[in-house]
Amino acid sequence: MKSYTQMSRAELQQEYAAAQSAYQTLKAKGLKLNMARGKPGKEQLDMVTDICNILIKPEDFMADGIETRNYGEVTGIPAAKALFAEILDCRPEQCFVGGNSSLQLMYDAISKAYTHGLLHSEKPWGKLDSVKWLCPAPGYDRHFKVTESFGMQLITVPMTADGPDMDVVEELIKDPSVKGMWNVPKYSNPLGLIYSDETIRRLSAMKPAAPDFMLMWDNAYIIHEFEGDFVPFPDILSLCEANGNADMVYEFASTSKVTFPGAGVAVMATSCANMEYLKKLINIQIIGFDKINQLRHVRYLKDKTHTLELMKRHAAILRPKFEVVLEALDKEIAPLGIASWNRPKGGYFIALDAMHGTAKRTLALCKEAGVVMTGAGATFPYGVDPNDSNIRIAPTLPPVEELREAVAVFCICLRLSALEKLMVE
Amino acid sequence: MKSYTQMSRAELQQEYAAAQSAYQTLKAKGLKLNMARGKPGKEQLDMVTDICNILIKPEDFMADGIETRNYGEVTGIPAAKALFAEILDCRPEQCFVGGNSSLQLMYDAISKAYTHGLLHSEKPWGKLDSVKWLCPAPGYDRHFKVTESFGMQLITVPMTADGPDMDVVEELIKDPSVKGMWNVPKYSNPLGLIYSDETIRRLSAMKPAAPDFMLMWDNAYIIHEFEGDFVPFPDILSLCEANGNADMVYEFASTSKVTFPGAGVAVMATSCANMEYLKKLINIQIIGFDKINQLRHVRYLKDKTHTLELMKRHAAILRPKFEVVLEALDKEIAPLGIASWNRPKGGYFIALDAMHGTAKRTLALCKEAGVVMTGAGATFPYGVDPNDSNIRIAPTLPPVEELREAVAVFCICLRLSALEKLMVE
Repeated sequence: MKSYTQMSRAELQQEYAAAQSAYQTLKAKGLKLNMARGKPGKEQLDMVTDICNILIKPEDFMADGIETRNYGEVTGIPAAKALFAEILDCRPEQCFVGGNSSLQLMYDAISKAYTHGLLHSEKPWGKLDSVKWLCPAPGYDRHFKVTESFGMQLITVPMTADGPDMDVVEELIKDPSVKGMWNVPKYSNPLGLIYSDETIRRLSAMKPAAPDFMLMWDNAYIIHEFEGDFVPFPDILSLCEANGNADMVYEFASTSKVTFPGAGVAVMATSCANMEYLKKLINIQIIGFDKINQLRHVRYLKDKTHTLELMKRHAAILRPKFEVVLEALDKEIAPLGIASWNRPKGGYFIALDAMHGTAKRTLALCKEAGVVMTGAGATFPYGVDPNDSNIRIAPTLPPVEELREAVAVFCICLRLSALEKLMVE
Repeated sequence: MKSYTQMSRAELQQEYAAAQSAYQTLKAKGLKLNMARGKPGKEQLDMVTDICNILIKPEDFMADGIETRNYGEVTGIPAAKALFAEILDCRPEQCFVGGNSSLQLMYDAISKAYTHGLLHSEKPWGKLDSVKWLCPAPGYDRHFKVTESFGMQLITVPMTADGPDMDVVEELIKDPSVKGMWNVPKYSNPLGLIYSDETIRRLSAMKPAAPDFMLMWDNAYIIHEFEGDFVPFPDILSLCEANGNADMVYEFASTSKVTFPGAGVAVMATSCANMEYLKKLINIQIIGFDKINQLRHVRYLKDKTHTLELMKRHAAILRPKFEVVLEALDKEIAPLGIASWNRPKGGYFIALDAMHGTAKRTLALCKEAGVVMTGAGATFPYGVDPNDSNIRIAPTLPPVEELREAVAVFCICLRLSALEKLMVE
């Protein structure tokens, strides 16, 4: 195979005709495949369904003297705090164990900044004329949408191989209206990279002009290696504390990709001072989250070691799916010089950079052929990728056989959109 | 027994000495009893624990083609909407089935009014100088605290035997800064009364000056008769719709006192226009609530008829507890002319009006003797009962034998505080 950029016009036209023909054949299959969201597959769900067979008899529901079947314990049951503290490498009293969604905990923390203000806020953000927020991009679309929904001005921070460009970040936080920053520090969504120690150090040592700056630390994939052993990760809470920034950081995690997406347990970890402040506000909002599901998770996951063993079993299901995608890209696309992509060892995504100006067209072609992908631009603030290049591939939901078909379609669509572009140039 | 108000000073002193002696005897027992919150008792929890033995095998988790173990369905699974619609007598598409807490759904609806505005809001309430809210009192302390937490001005509306005084309400809503009103329309907390048809009609036909007025309809006890058969109750949504007020009403309910408090399922019912508007906002906040628990409830409760049968079994446990309290009050307190109380047929509370100026003292004495009650004043906005008279009795949590002891303490404390007051007059 020859790189498209080195092809003559005649060669491009020939290649286009071949690709078109292949595309029409695939399209005729009437496929219905989905590589859009980071959802675990059925095999993973079946593997953990035992968790529903743990709490059965009335006496099963007592946790350290707490009746999980009745009201109370707004910050979560102690056993759940201890489990998450071990996983996050922080202290149990820093853990607020909530409901089924870490996104909800993030949203609510920001919402309370707007309605009530945070511990160090001068006033509720709802009373401010302008609130700005740092968005390392490509990043997680749902993060960006939360801050967009509150009417904040989203500022894109470029990503480097070490995480967000810290020179840019350290300059931007001099503006007191910059109130926070999104982070997925381990196997970042969608780039799959791990923030370097130096990036993490600089983040924990930042001195933002805003006294109530929120360093949002979404550790969604902290134990989500699908290749190799668990990679230890620094505890951001103690790093911030050591740098005099104890109240700056809010860390989040969940069991959405450990047990059940949408029926797991989520945690927010933050300083004890923030916890005291927020606990009072949250206790007005809710009497307590679902303690039965918290206890179910504690009994099922037991401790960090046992949880990591379970994650190895998830990895065994996930790894072949990532391999299918990477093998196809290596074989079909690499020689053509029309895209580059990462090779993550954990997380739920592969991020691909297509030829500039072809991402939207590629995904439109995919959709036409029955393959749904994350919308182009979704990984950037306001859903706009300035280069129309980044594509997030989510290979975890389909069974391997379907995935193979979906990736074949995707590769053809990448080729077609690149050829279309090259042919008009 | 003679009414205290007819006693001479000497008789009062003699009675006080006798009551003091009885109080000291009870106090010496070192009791630890709780009549503070509307919590179901252990017998009720044990009775419904079967619900945890329904979804076990992987194939159990499919609901109308929806995989409840994976992400999605932000407004809830259709089967759960259908169940709540039947119970509330509204339409499934009007039901948003959420997490474990109706209080959270109420809080979040109000929070979104502040951060984003509602469908008919001119601007987010956070941008307004003043927001006022109507609080029929005595009422539910957690309701009042939600609106207080947002910094609203709470306006007390007197309760009549038919519900809130509608002449007062209709006058107050002429103020465009009056943005909403709390209601517990059936077995109201704590009065246990049912709003009359005429009150409900007038509420549904109100024409508030605020275009985004929220008629908060917390139907927490809609199927919670503990005496007699289920009492049918009008559907507020269709009444409001018939009066051109479709988007004014937000109804709430939950299974907190049907299955598990804190691990049940909550619903918000509102117009389809409100639903469309709020769904978009909520979908930014959360990918979806716990659908497994929703399905578990659907399979367990089945339909309204079957749910009402379960409520009869709850009633059989609850009725004797209410009888213990009422019998003690009838015997020990009624002849003394120092308090009056209601005789509800449903709900979780008995509301007692003690001699003015004695509620706080009564509850302080109770506490000293090891009996915790809902704080005096809690049933009024800002926690201040202008008469220091209303006491909420929550008899549902303790076993009958403990309850007997707790009520004995309470009666003695009522007597002591009344005597103290009469003796200084």
